[in-house]
Amino acid sequence: MDSMTMIAVASIIISGVTISFGCLGPSLGEGRAVATALSALAQQPDASATITRTLFVGLAMIESTAIYCFVVSMILIFANPFWNYAIAQAAGN
Amino acid sequence: MDSMTMIAVASIIISGVTISFGCLGPSLGEGRAVATALSALAQQPDASATITRTLFVGLAMIESTAIYCFVVSMILIFANPFWNYAIAQAAGN
Amino acid sequence: MDSMTMIAVASIIISGVTISFGCLGPSLGEGRAVATALSALAQQPDASATITRTLFVGLAMIESTAIYCFVVSMILIFANPFWNYAIAQAAGN
Amino acid sequence: MDSMTMIAVASIIISGVTISFGCLGPSLGEGRAVATALSALAQQPDASATITRTLFVGLAMIESTAIYCFVVSMILIFANPFWNYAIAQAAGN
Amino acid sequence: MDSMTMIAVASIIISGVTISFGCLGPSLGEGRAVATALSALAQQPDASATITRTLFVGLAMIESTAIYCFVVSMILIFANPFWNYAIAQAAGN
Amino acid sequence: MDSMTMIAVASIIISGVTISFGCLGPSLGEGRAVATALSALAQQPDASATITRTLFVGLAMIESTAIYCFVVSMILIFANPFWNYAIAQAAGN
Amino acid sequence: MDSMTMIAVASIIISGVTISFGCLGPSLGEGRAVATALSALAQQPDASATITRTLFVGLAMIESTAIYCFVVSMILIFANPFWNYAIAQAAGN
Amino acid sequence: MDSMTMIAVASIIISGVTISFGCLGPSLGEGRAVATALSALAQQPDASATITRTLFVGLAMIESTAIYCFVVSMILIFANPFWNYAIAQAAGN
Amino acid sequence: MDSMTMIAVASIIISGVTISFGCLGPSLGEGRAVATALSALAQQPDASATITRTLFVGLAMIESTAIYCFVVSMILIFANPFWNYAIAQAAGN
Amino acid sequence: MDSMTMIAVASIIISGVTISFGCLGPSLGEGRAVATALSALAQQPDASATITRTLFVGLAMIESTAIYCFVVSMILIFANPFWNYAIAQAAGN
Amino acid sequence: MDSMTMIAVASIIISGVTISFGCLGPSLGEGRAVATALSALAQQPDASATITRTLFVGLAMIESTAIYCFVVSMILIFANPFWNYAIAQAAGN
Amino acid sequence: MDSMTMIAVASIIISGVTISFGCLGPSLGEGRAVATALSALAQQPDASATITRTLFVGLAMIESTAIYCFVVSMILIFANPFWNYAIAQAAGN
Amino acid sequence: MDSMTMIAVASIIISGVTISFGCLGPSLGEGRAVATALSALAQQPDASATITRTLFVGLAMIESTAIYCFVVSMILIFANPFWNYAIAQAAGN
Amino acid sequence: MDSMTMIAVASIIISGVTISFGCLGPSLGEGRAVATALSALAQQPDASATITRTLFVGLAMIESTAIYCFVVSMILIFANPFWNYAIAQAAGN
Repeated sequence: MDSMTMIAVASIIISGVTISFGCLGPSLGEGRAVATALSALAQQPDASATITRTLFVGLAMIESTAIYCFVVSMILIFANPFWNYAIAQAAGN
Repeated sequence: MDSMTMIAVASIIISGVTISFGCLGPSLGEGRAVATALSALAQQPDASATITRTLFVGLAMIESTAIYCFVVSMILIFANPFWNYAIAQAAGN
Repeated sequence: MDSMTMIAVASIIISGVTISFGCLGPSLGEGRAVATALSALAQQPDASATITRTLFVGLAMIESTAIYCFVVSMILIFANPFWNYAIAQAAGN
Repeated sequence: MDSMTMIAVASIIISGVTISFGCLGPSLGEGRAVATALSALAQQPDASATITRTLFVGLAMIESTAIYCFVVSMILIFANPFWNYAIAQAAGN
Repeated sequence: MDSMTMIAVASIIISGVTISFGCLGPSLGEGRAVATALSALAQQPDASATITRTLFVGLAMIESTAIYCFVVSMILIFANPFWNYAIAQAAGN
Repeated sequence: MDSMTMIAVASIIISGVTISFGCLGPSLGEGRAVATALSALAQQPDASATITRTLFVGLAMIESTAIYCFVVSMILIFANPFWNYAIAQAAGN
Repeated sequence: MDSMTMIAVASIIISGVTISFGCLGPSLGEGRAVATALSALAQQPDASATITRTLFVGLAMIESTAIYCFVVSMILIFANPFWNYAIAQAAGN
Repeated sequence: MDSMTMIAVASIIISGVTISFGCLGPSLGEGRAVATALSALAQQPDASATITRTLFVGLAMIESTAIYCFVVSMILIFANPFWNYAIAQAAGN
Repeated sequence: MDSMTMIAVASIIISGVTISFGCLGPSLGEGRAVATALSALAQQPDASATITRTLFVGLAMIESTAIYCFVVSMILIFANPFWNYAIAQAAGN
Repeated sequence: MDSMTMIAVASIIISGVTISFGCLGPSLGEGRAVATALSALAQQPDASATITRTLFVGLAMIESTAIYCFVVSMILIFANPFWNYAIAQAAGN
Repeated sequence: MDSMTMIAVASIIISGVTISFGCLGPSLGEGRAVATALSALAQQPDASATITRTLFVGLAMIESTAIYCFVVSMILIFANPFWNYAIAQAAGN
Repeated sequence: MDSMTMIAVASIIISGVTISFGCLGPSLGEGRAVATALSALAQQPDASATITRTLFVGLAMIESTAIYCFVVSMILIFANPFWNYAIAQAAGN
Repeated sequence: MDSMTMIAVASIIISGVTISFGCLGPSLGEGRAVATALSALAQQPDASATITRTLFVGLAMIESTAIYCFVVSMILIFANPFWNYAIAQAAGN
Repeated sequence: MDSMTMIAVASIIISGVTISFGCLGPSLGEGRAVATALSALAQQPDASATITRTLFVGLAMIESTAIYCFVVSMILIFANPFWNYAIAQAAGN
């Protein structure tokens, strides 16, 4: 198996693993945050403004970790420096 | 095993693994959110408007991580840049 | 083992793994949602309309992740682009 | 090991793994749903009609994921396109 | 190792794995359902008719997933199409 | 390693794995059911007839999954069609 | 490694694994049942007759799965049909 | 590696694994039973006779599964039929 | 496989694994912190200023561990000293 | 690697694994039993005689499973029949 | 694969694994500490000074373990003595 | 790799694994026992003499399993009969 | 791969694994201790002096185990006797 | 790979694994003990002397298991009898 195939295969594998595994934590964390928000709303409907605002800030923080994974996954598929180097070298040959 | 087969096999394997594993977290997180929404509704029926709205925003956030995985999975099957490069090279040969 | 067999075997393995593993999360999540709906109904029978409606929306969201897996699994068995390419090439030979 | 054996063995392995692993989630989810239905019935016998109806809808949703797995398992044993292609090719030889 | 042995060994392994692993979920789920039924009976003896009926329907649903696994296991031992094909071919030789 | 040894070894391994792993779920499930029956009896001694009857039906359902595993295990040791075929072929040689 | 050694080694390994792994579930299940029996006795000493009787029936059911494993383990050591066949063949040589 | 070493090594490995793994369940189960017995005694000192008796019967049942493992472990070290056969054959040579 | 490919593949694999696995902890930790903040707000709306401030400090601390992982992941893709050394050496050749 | 080294290495490995793994269950079980004894003492100081006595009997039962492991471990190091046989044979050579 | 590549690859792999795995504990621990701080604040707003101070000291202690991992990870990338030795030797050649 | 190195390596590996893994259970068990002792003391300060005494007896029992592991670990490093035999044989050569 | 590379690679791998894995326990333990300290402060603000002092002693004890791991990790990178011996021997050559 | 490298590598690996894994249990156990001590102090400030004394004795017991691991780890690095023997033999050569 030559160098380019190796890099391509590694990029494919890791781009998928990164996003699928990296979504496990955020989705569970967001599920927990939303769930507590809902029971907080049921318990104290008057504080819905504060609760909703805090929930959205928290969801944004948690979602940011999922975004990191998505960014790395996209970089590995569409802007992979190692792959670009390999193509450049192959073209140079 | 030649390069193209290698890339094809890796794409097949990872497209399936990405979506199947990537759905684990969101489905559990959504299950939790929906469950709490239901008990919140039972506890405070008057706040059903706020609860439902918050639930849908939360579900959208959580579902987004599943969508990331689905997108990556579809890219790997139907718009795989490494596969396209390999086909181009094979055609060029 | 030639290329076509390789792709066939990978498709068979992943189509099964995708649907079986991808059903784990949704079925557990739906089980949780249905369970809470039932205890919510027992606790507040008057709100059964709201509870049932919210439950069905939630189940649809959760089921959607199982559908993603089923779609990918079916694509891998019946509309696999890598397999089609391999057949085309084999026919071309 | 020739191509046909390879495909046969993979189909056998995955058909079994798919149904056995794919039943884990639905059976646990249904167990949870039924369990909550029973305690809901004990808590609020008057709402038995609503509870039973919601339970059956929920069980149908959860069972559907087990059915997906069973369908894929049966396809892999009795209507496997890769195996059919291999037989056709073997007959053609 | 020739083709037939390969298929035989795979069938033996998977028939056992399918039924043993596939029974894990149903037995735990049924254990949970029965346990809740019993505490529901202790809590509300008057509703024993409804509880028992719902329990039996639920057990039937859960048992059905175990039956799927048993059916696949039996098919793999006694009505394995891949094995039949291999015998037919061996006889034809 | 010849074909017969292969089949014998696989049968030995799987017969043991099937019964040992297949007993994990039923024994835990029955333990849970019996435990709840006992606390139900302590809570509502008057309903002992209904509780005991329901417990026995439930135990029978759960035990049935253990029986499936035992049956498959015994078939693999004493009535293994693949082994019989292999002996027949060895005798025919 | 010749055939007989292979079968002997597999029988030794599986006989031990079967009984050691197969005892995990029953011992935990029985521990749970006994524990609940004791707290049930403490809660309702008057029902000790019913509780004890139900406990023993339950323990017998759970123990039966351990017995299945012990039986298979003993068969593999002392009445292994595959080993007997191998000895017979070795003697016939 | 000759046959006898193989059998000896397998017996050594499995004798240790059997007893060490086989003790996991019983010790945890007994720990649970004893713990509940103690809190039951604290809760209902008057029923100490019944509780102690039931505890000892239960401990005996649970310990029996550990004994099964110990017996198999001892058989594999000191009365291993496969090893005896191998020694007999080695002596016969 | 030459040295540069090796380093490229290792960098690709680890950059993805680092960020995906490294996000698991922070996202779960933040989910927990946000969830508790929401129920604290529901319980004591008057202390919302203190709660929100403490929450943001805490989220910053937890997010910092995710940032560490993101930094290492980016270093491995875009500023990898081992890769730079390898390129320099390859250019020098 | 000759036979004696093989047996020595297997004995070393298993003697350590047996005692280290075999202590996991008993130490956890005893920890649980002691913990409950202490809270039982705090709850009912008058019953300290019965509680202490029952605790010691229970600890003895649980410790016995650790002793089994220690015995097997010592046998494997200092009274290993397979090793003795190997030394005898080596001396006989 | 020559010595330098080996060391480079090992350093890349471990630098990523160290920080990603090493962040799991601290982020979960900090999440727990922050969560409890928030509910403590909600419960006793008057003690907010003491609670906040203790929280920050605790977070600093926990964060220190993440810092250890980050330090080791950075040493492995930028100040690796083994890599420096290898470069020195390669330059010396 | 010659025999002595093999035995040395196995002894090194197992001596470390034995003590590190063997400490897991006792330390968790002791942590639980001490924790309960402390809350028992807080609940019933008058019974501190009985509680402390019972705690120390219990800790001694639990610590004994850690001591078993330490003893085996030390035997493997400093009084290993297999290593002594190997040295004796090497000296005899 | 020569001896020095081997030792260097092993040292790199283990130095990272030691600190990353060794921080898991202390960070979780400290998180738990800090969390309980905070709720204790909220419950009994008057005892803040005793609570804080005990917390710091406890944190020091727990942190010590993380320090052990850090020390071993640093020794393996900067004061590794096996590496020093290898360098000395290489210089001697 | 010669004997000395083998022993060095094994010692490096195990010294790190021993201390990192061996710290998991003690740190969690101590965390639990300290946590309970703090809530005990909050509940019964008057008993702080007894609680603190018992806590320190308990921490010493738990820390001892971590010390065992540290001792074995240090022995493997700085006073390894197998390594000393190997050096002596190498010097003798």
